[in-house]
Amino acid sequence: MKKAIVVLSGGQDSATCAAWAKTMFDEVKAVSFNYNQRHSKELESAKKICDLLGIEHQILDLPALMGNKKSGLTDPSISVNEADAKTGLPKSFVPGRNLLFLNTVAALALSEGSFDIVTGVCQTDYSGYPDCRRHTIDHIEASIFCGNEELITKDGPGYFHIHTPLMYLTKAESITLASRLPQGMDAVALSWTCYEGGEEPCGVCPACDLRIKGFAEAGIKDPALKG
Amino acid sequence: MKKAIVVLSGGQDSATCAAWAKTMFDEVKAVSFNYNQRHSKELESAKKICDLLGIEHQILDLPALMGNKKSGLTDPSISVNEADAKTGLPKSFVPGRNLLFLNTVAALALSEGSFDIVTGVCQTDYSGYPDCRRHTIDHIEASIFCGNEELITKDGPGYFHIHTPLMYLTKAESITLASRLPQGMDAVALSWTCYEGGEEPCGVCPACDLRIKGFAEAGIKDPALKG
Repeated sequence: MKKAIVVLSGGQDSATCAAWAKTMFDEVKAVSFNYNQRHSKELESAKKICDLLGIEHQILDLPALMGNKKSGLTDPSISVNEADAKTGLPKSFVPGRNLLFLNTVAALALSEGSFDIVTGVCQTDYSGYPDCRRHTIDHIEASIFCGNEELITKDGPGYFHIHTPLMYLTKAESITLASRLPQGMDAVALSWTCYEGGEEPCGVCPACDLRIKGFAEAGIKDPALKG
Repeated sequence: MKKAIVVLSGGQDSATCAAWAKTMFDEVKAVSFNYNQRHSKELESAKKICDLLGIEHQILDLPALMGNKKSGLTDPSISVNEADAKTGLPKSFVPGRNLLFLNTVAALALSEGSFDIVTGVCQTDYSGYPDCRRHTIDHIEASIFCGNEELITKDGPGYFHIHTPLMYLTKAESITLASRLPQGMDAVALSWTCYEGGEEPCGVCPACDLRIKGFAEAGIKDPALKG
């Protein structure tokens, strides 16, 4: 029986990935991370998405990222709507975050006899995060394979794979994919994207902006919007 | 001013690395991990080593590894003195552990403007852990570089390096190195190696065995031994 673990932030992309994983694997589990992110509200969405899809959900703390002074997602005094003048990186970038997400989920997966993990990272329409590129994911995958080689080759299928179903899709294409997957749009309806984490999405931050444009381009109404 | 962060388990190798880093860098900090390991006693040693060397010390929880049922270090019902029949891996191997250690310390380093981290992993005389090999470290380093590229190239020195000063040393050579470093042997005297984590080292587990043989071969008396 093939098991997979999904990295579930609670946003629309990972919600789509959770629905995707349900069609691709016999057993699916999701892991979310608490790092005192500005939009920790996404964790409530993650839980609702797992309840909808009937999959196990685990929230893990990442103490190393909490209170990080380098990112607007972990330091409320930094705006998430700007880019750093020196690096050009969005100020919402959290150094090492995605590497920690994937390596943590990999450690769990390997301990539970699973060799497939799923993440919603995307190189097209992406937010300028270097840790969302296929190149980075390939290096992470190689490090996981090399660091657990005998476990993977002698007590596993001989591979460890990080599935990235959205890697080469535009935001509009990801939304269209969600609309084609069983429960895909229902999962997206429960997702939370906005970095601000207020009562309603701010509609202004880069995450909201991408979501709004994606739905418009796909010609689909965002099911999370009221009215 | 060049800063480095040392992954400090509290064992003899990481103690040696902390002393090594003090000679190589202007500012050194150490990070240890709590994952409810059988030998959590090593964390007390880590603290003492940092006090001796006068460096900052931080202990971080790794909830993802706690209670791992795949390893004797996290599940007391599994012996740490055996190898797994199927994989040949020592039962003390914790899947993904070293990857999490290094990626966590890298995330901290990048957020604190440091691009050098130090680990005591070793390919010679090693314990059969695939995540201690240079190949694995190279892949981890590549993933960190690729996932944080603009931060490293535009707001950093253009590299991110995982220093592994003990990689190609035998245990006896590592001990000799410690004896040549300022405060090296004093740091090793405070270290804790035994997997069992009892009052005194058991002298039987693979970690004790390596330590005993290493000191014997180096012709140096283990400063941690009483009498």
